[in-house]
Amino acid sequence: MFHDLENAAAGTQVSLAELIENARWNADGLMPAIAQQHDSGEVLMMAWMNAAALRETLQTGQVCYWSRSRQTFWRKGETSGQRQRLIEARLDCDGDTLLLKVEQTGPACHTGRRDCFYIRLSEETGEVDREPLIAPEELYGTPR
Amino acid sequence: MFHDLENAAAGTQVSLAELIENARWNADGLMPAIAQQHDSGEVLMMAWMNAAALRETLQTGQVCYWSRSRQTFWRKGETSGQRQRLIEARLDCDGDTLLLKVEQTGPACHTGRRDCFYIRLSEETGEVDREPLIAPEELYGTPR
Repeated sequence: MFHDLENAAAGTQVSLAELIENARWNADGLMPAIAQQHDSGEVLMMAWMNAAALRETLQTGQVCYWSRSRQTFWRKGETSGQRQRLIEARLDCDGDTLLLKVEQTGPACHTGRRDCFYIRLSEETGEVDREPLIAPEELYGTPR
Repeated sequence: MFHDLENAAAGTQVSLAELIENARWNADGLMPAIAQQHDSGEVLMMAWMNAAALRETLQTGQVCYWSRSRQTFWRKGETSGQRQRLIEARLDCDGDTLLLKVEQTGPACHTGRRDCFYIRLSEETGEVDREPLIAPEELYGTPR
């Protein structure tokens, strides 16, 4: 199906059910989802979604991932308040990666940084290039 | 190691070898790598790297992925000319995703579109929202 869409005219539609059925989920039924701040273009984080998390996200407009470590839905910001409101969701050409344009409330990273990509690599080293904006204890320390 | 880096001061360095050893490669020794146009912020594509592809990319400044379908190095643009010059490479907080800021020559997508994320999703449908800038035959049709 994705091969047929490559040359489809702009405006061609397919049902979400068909896309989900044909998408290339991995052996665990998951797909990487890249979260990008919609206006600034910052790449905030990458996490995983299954079909149910994607459907919930599209229906509620609040981003819901699948947590591989906890094996449960991960409604981003439910504990920390660092919610992601969905502006736009896109699937790539071969149906194996999602791009989510979001409005991120506060830092996206569990370390209290705006985004997760704070280790800058060079040929020989990696360097931490930013400190947290907020202590993680402030994000997770008190029950909400 | 990544846990220790969470609260490290800005400027803290670790060797690339140590990062590569501790990074969370998947069962196939791969990690997702997100390519972003460095100045416009466009998310162009997502592909996979193994440690050797990452090292080569950092050393040469030209992005080299690992092709899962062909099981070989994929030096982006080698066939099509659609090269990616590396501006900056970053690793995320838990060491399982790469962000590559690149200078993309021409379209990044094999379909001839600038980026791969041209299927816009809604609650019920997916819609092809752009046609190719260049016919794929022009990119791949003639031997280089």
